[in-house]
Amino acid sequence: MRQDNLTKPQGSLGQLESVSIQVVGMKRNSRPRMTHKVIFTLAGDHGVTQEGVSAYPSEVTPQMVYNFLRGGAGINVLARHVGARVVVADLGVATKMEEHRSLIDKKVAMGTQNMAKGPAMSREEAIRSIEAGIELVEEELSKGIDILGTGDMGIGNTTSSSAITAALTGVDVAIVTGRGTGLDDEGWRRKVKVIQRALDINRPDPREGIDVLSKLGGFEIGGIAGVILAGAKYQIPVVIDGFISGAAALIATSFSPKVKPYLIASHQSAEKGHKIILEHLGLKPLLNLDLRLGEGTGAALGIFLVEASIRILNEMTTFAEAGVSEKN
Amino acid sequence: MRQDNLTKPQGSLGQLESVSIQVVGMKRNSRPRMTHKVIFTLAGDHGVTQEGVSAYPSEVTPQMVYNFLRGGAGINVLARHVGARVVVADLGVATKMEEHRSLIDKKVAMGTQNMAKGPAMSREEAIRSIEAGIELVEEELSKGIDILGTGDMGIGNTTSSSAITAALTGVDVAIVTGRGTGLDDEGWRRKVKVIQRALDINRPDPREGIDVLSKLGGFEIGGIAGVILAGAKYQIPVVIDGFISGAAALIATSFSPKVKPYLIASHQSAEKGHKIILEHLGLKPLLNLDLRLGEGTGAALGIFLVEASIRILNEMTTFAEAGVSEKN
Repeated sequence: MRQDNLTKPQGSLGQLESVSIQVVGMKRNSRPRMTHKVIFTLAGDHGVTQEGVSAYPSEVTPQMVYNFLRGGAGINVLARHVGARVVVADLGVATKMEEHRSLIDKKVAMGTQNMAKGPAMSREEAIRSIEAGIELVEEELSKGIDILGTGDMGIGNTTSSSAITAALTGVDVAIVTGRGTGLDDEGWRRKVKVIQRALDINRPDPREGIDVLSKLGGFEIGGIAGVILAGAKYQIPVVIDGFISGAAALIATSFSPKVKPYLIASHQSAEKGHKIILEHLGLKPLLNLDLRLGEGTGAALGIFLVEASIRILNEMTTFAEAGVSEKN
Repeated sequence: MRQDNLTKPQGSLGQLESVSIQVVGMKRNSRPRMTHKVIFTLAGDHGVTQEGVSAYPSEVTPQMVYNFLRGGAGINVLARHVGARVVVADLGVATKMEEHRSLIDKKVAMGTQNMAKGPAMSREEAIRSIEAGIELVEEELSKGIDILGTGDMGIGNTTSSSAITAALTGVDVAIVTGRGTGLDDEGWRRKVKVIQRALDINRPDPREGIDVLSKLGGFEIGGIAGVILAGAKYQIPVVIDGFISGAAALIATSFSPKVKPYLIASHQSAEKGHKIILEHLGLKPLLNLDLRLGEGTGAALGIFLVEASIRILNEMTTFAEAGVSEKN
């Protein structure tokens, strides 16, 4: 293998070596291309915000989508920094969005229902959100996708993601629930109670991802699960962002064991449930910077590191090429 | 502060926020420039290789320097990836190097003496190596340096760095000594004994960095200490690479408490003594990818992350600019 003959001690680039080997395996190409980098940032609103589980009001979801379209958000800056394009899609924002040439309309409904009072969405809506995510990837294929990243925007979506994580991993709600965008102690206790109530009322079936998604999910989470499934289908490395994308990965991997080999964890989020997800999926994150912004910001940084690993493979000389002596 | 008004929950970009605040403080500029990125990769040979402490022969040091000059090494690939230029300097390679327009000749001597039998260099040579590092930075200033990274090449230099670390932190030799480029168990035990002998014979004074450097050091390590000192002098953020650069940082910080605020730890190396150095310096690394290549490869990745943090500061919109609602 070329990796073993590059002018460095074997293994000395650590996780950069292992991730490059993973990508070579996915693409069945020993010197893969990393020209087209795409981050899918999907937005949706959550009925559960009625329960006072977020530090920010729901109106921030559409406001931030407009911010993405103007290029002023964190994901825009980091995507520019790594040379990725950002695909912004409305999967279920609870506002009628103004038309914009860069906003893809995949709205399933005007936000989910309040999961603390019943299912967040119908089974049909859950399936539709996943299909919409798959379509997003397929519609971009003609422009080229060598690697993709996932991202989210949705006030209330850490609540939904904690519920999904508890349902699919079996870990206690209090352990998988964090402070989201910045809850205080009282807000955190309320959030835990609301999630527990949603689980008790809905009784999601942990053996069936669609059931969990429909009862506890968000449309953007279903959409991200669809993006992940499409990535695996088309042999594209899927760099997952933080906690919300992690919950979507739990759903996507519940459908088929063929999905997991395509997943690369960009980072470990400061949102505490994310560690549980990564352990459950058996993924080792590339970064651990205490990020908790979402949007695909961690995925953007992860894409940079994966590209670094592939450039090493493609551009470093071998011992023989460089005339460097090998190990004693 | 602008950082607090950007369209994201405060603190949600974790270490990217703290490092950007550190850089703003260093540069006394709230929107600093990151145009000119420079990695200083310094090479030198080590007499202690006579003791059989390295998995590779000494001839690899000049061979790898030529590899740097041709652009085929790991540092070249990663520097291109992050848009940094690499300054390659000979601080003490034990071979007469061919002239090359990109190789800066700062040779102090043809490699150090064997520290297991006496001082690695004279006090004058130690001072000269530090001065050479300072000159390297000063000679590049006219081309522009907004941020700098450090890097090393020198067969045997983990042995020297472990000895320096043991001397300056007081931690046991066995704890600060790793496997370098790939020693087996027997080789590792030999390396520990050689380092212990070097400490016993030379009795370096831990209160005096120059004494430690002259008795245990390498010319490239002295040179990197000089690069670090110059960075602090000219208010340039100094992104330190792994174990060898860490040993140089121990020496540089021993001269003045004014150096430490300019240091950014790019990563935590797989070489076990590096963790001890970072704890001693109170630095939290940006990355932990099990890298152990040196050359400045970790510093290159760290520079990318620091630049990301500064672009966030310079390019993200504020809540007021974007019309996004603030926290409830």
